[in-house]
Amino acid sequence: MNLQIRGDDTRLTALEARRRIDDGRLTASRLVAACLEQVERREPIVRAWEHVDRGGALAQARQLDSSPSRGLLHGIPFGVKDILDTCDQPATYGSPIYREHRPPWDSATVALARAQGGIALGKTVTTEFANRHAGKTRNPHDPTRTPGGSSSGSAAAVADFHVPLALGTQTGGSVIRPAAYCGVHGYKPSFQLFGNAGVRTNTEQFDTVGLMARSVDDLALFKAAVGQLPYAPPRPDDVSRPRVGLCRTPHWDVTQPETREALDKTRRMLEAAGAGIVDFDLPAELFDGLEHAHRLICGFESVRNYAHELGRWPDLVSDDFKRERVDVGTAATLAEFRDAIRLGERARAWMDQTLAEREIDALLTPSAAGEAPKGLGSTGQATFNYLWTHMYMPAVTLPHFTSPAGMPVGVQFVGRRHDDDRHLSFAAWADRILAAH
Amino acid sequence: MNLQIRGDDTRLTALEARRRIDDGRLTASRLVAACLEQVERREPIVRAWEHVDRGGALAQARQLDSSPSRGLLHGIPFGVKDILDTCDQPATYGSPIYREHRPPWDSATVALARAQGGIALGKTVTTEFANRHAGKTRNPHDPTRTPGGSSSGSAAAVADFHVPLALGTQTGGSVIRPAAYCGVHGYKPSFQLFGNAGVRTNTEQFDTVGLMARSVDDLALFKAAVGQLPYAPPRPDDVSRPRVGLCRTPHWDVTQPETREALDKTRRMLEAAGAGIVDFDLPAELFDGLEHAHRLICGFESVRNYAHELGRWPDLVSDDFKRERVDVGTAATLAEFRDAIRLGERARAWMDQTLAEREIDALLTPSAAGEAPKGLGSTGQATFNYLWTHMYMPAVTLPHFTSPAGMPVGVQFVGRRHDDDRHLSFAAWADRILAAH
Repeated sequence: MNLQIRGDDTRLTALEARRRIDDGRLTASRLVAACLEQVERREPIVRAWEHVDRGGALAQARQLDSSPSRGLLHGIPFGVKDILDTCDQPATYGSPIYREHRPPWDSATVALARAQGGIALGKTVTTEFANRHAGKTRNPHDPTRTPGGSSSGSAAAVADFHVPLALGTQTGGSVIRPAAYCGVHGYKPSFQLFGNAGVRTNTEQFDTVGLMARSVDDLALFKAAVGQLPYAPPRPDDVSRPRVGLCRTPHWDVTQPETREALDKTRRMLEAAGAGIVDFDLPAELFDGLEHAHRLICGFESVRNYAHELGRWPDLVSDDFKRERVDVGTAATLAEFRDAIRLGERARAWMDQTLAEREIDALLTPSAAGEAPKGLGSTGQATFNYLWTHMYMPAVTLPHFTSPAGMPVGVQFVGRRHDDDRHLSFAAWADRILAAH
Repeated sequence: MNLQIRGDDTRLTALEARRRIDDGRLTASRLVAACLEQVERREPIVRAWEHVDRGGALAQARQLDSSPSRGLLHGIPFGVKDILDTCDQPATYGSPIYREHRPPWDSATVALARAQGGIALGKTVTTEFANRHAGKTRNPHDPTRTPGGSSSGSAAAVADFHVPLALGTQTGGSVIRPAAYCGVHGYKPSFQLFGNAGVRTNTEQFDTVGLMARSVDDLALFKAAVGQLPYAPPRPDDVSRPRVGLCRTPHWDVTQPETREALDKTRRMLEAAGAGIVDFDLPAELFDGLEHAHRLICGFESVRNYAHELGRWPDLVSDDFKRERVDVGTAATLAEFRDAIRLGERARAWMDQTLAEREIDALLTPSAAGEAPKGLGSTGQATFNYLWTHMYMPAVTLPHFTSPAGMPVGVQFVGRRHDDDRHLSFAAWADRILAAH
């Protein structure tokens, strides 16, 4: 790691920071000031932020410091991917079309985090419309490499200790991949768990707000806040001899050595800790066509949902968007769209039934093909993520491996749909084992 | 009917108006002027509009009159429910919180209608956040009665000849019910057919943009435009001896005499025209709990998606919203939410399979319990609509019956999911038969 480490407070997890605020060893003002200082120091290199609300964050922190605890995130700063609206900051959605836009509301997850005392430090860089046209952010571990996308700034900001928590969104692989590339903990919940109001649409059938943090416990804390859910700390001690399916997916041939090695090591370490690891293959008739179906649905929806921008500001929409969304969506027929929806429904039904029948607790699968690629023009591929987004299943990436080049390598665990609490307990169990590596 | 009929041009269907514009017998300017005159005359009684863009509509009409045809809706004015954004008009979402809000974009369906030459005449009244707290609109057939909701203004405006077409949305029964109460043709498509970008969220799992018109042909025309789909005129002549399931739903006991009579007559007329009518019962284990599940999902989502408004402007959120959404959503557990989602998925799978196995082309079912109720405080119940919204199936209400009080009474036909084109052909066939009544 070539991160410049200064300022202890920025190193704290959200949970530890809150404990210290609760017992008077830390104030929200000091924590926010430390985070702002880290942003100032590192932003010229990392470029994680579209907007930083310095004054607002400090004012909110002072106010919280003179109030009784407002809840789970009292005094904790967090980053907001600039595809989610906040009522007091700009929202560009990564597009020059919305350079001047200021929404009147907080998106659902932002409002709920704030209601629990969280402080929205600013808006983190997103790719254009949470798609694939890259923003300005660099990987904090090597600024010549992509941080991944589309939640580029959120992953970089958490990895680089600008904030302990950040919101992202995933439609293909936009939370898990950048989290893995930047070496943080990422969590994409079951579809429909968090509210999407105030999130600029990418593809309605898949858009999922997700979380970045530096521990599984922080993911669980943040989840409770932004989902207005009871707070349930993960319980790794309750996990005993779990049954894990190793899922190579139809794309195993594109995995790089660092990813294969991380999965091998994970497999051995979990087995040594008592897990039963079984191969988990996906039937070709349901899954070989799913990547195409995913792309087709995203294109079909996007060309319609972005009709305003494409019609009024065609020159301000990127060629990437036009090629990957508009061309695909314009060529797609309604019959193909229907077939793609039906394929996903059949695949989800198969998945739910098969995991239950085979009594599998979680799937182990790559977070990405390999380490963050060189260059900033592309944010990488969603090859190992679209599938789990499409399956509506909760996914967590854990960051404990490193490539020969010194870059983070993640491993992904995917849980049963709607079973997020249990999956976070499993992830906490696996995290404890892998951290010992 | 106690409507004051003046001005022939306002009586035209969109299709007929477009034909006349195409062959020079009518101009967009004359049509828009006639519609504006009708609005001016009738608005003090009907109150269908939140905002009328008089200047913008006339300017667009003049421009279209001096241009080659831009497409399916060239020169046709339409109403936009004030839950959908337009880039050049206010959007209140039926809430005093957004009295001053002006969105920067067109919602997907508005942008696509405009791209085909349609003219957004203005924003029609919605209930608060497309929920149940009534707006100011009155039923044009009897201003002491509700127009239904939540697409209150759209239904009233089309019924009262202010515009030939209008956009609505349905999360429970918000298109089909007001269309039936006001005596127009209403269409809620299969879930996911139209883009929801730019629609203020009610409940993501069910929000569906729908259409109002004064003929089935106009619904098909409007559908092609707002869905960016190939235009396929309905083909009633292709419908031969269809098999229709009479579905009384679990709520038959609340139907009023006028609805029972309309269904009886429909049944006899369709049978006389060659249809096979069979009883279609819904298994209790899947459908008796579905109304509760629907309400629970709407509450669970709403209390989260409206966290900003509830937190910042609690006094500006209606008691109706608090009682029906917030109280329900706050009390609901995550386990109940999951169970509700799973129940819907099982019911949809049963429905798709059963309609195919029994070779049923369409279901016949009430559009509403009865005629539009007296009073403006409530917009009526979604009792006969939530089910089909939840099933993601295309639904059409046809307006050819009248209650003893002289109010319109609709009958609803529900088609197979994803089979909207075939269902509109069926609806055109049924419409022709019922119109002869």
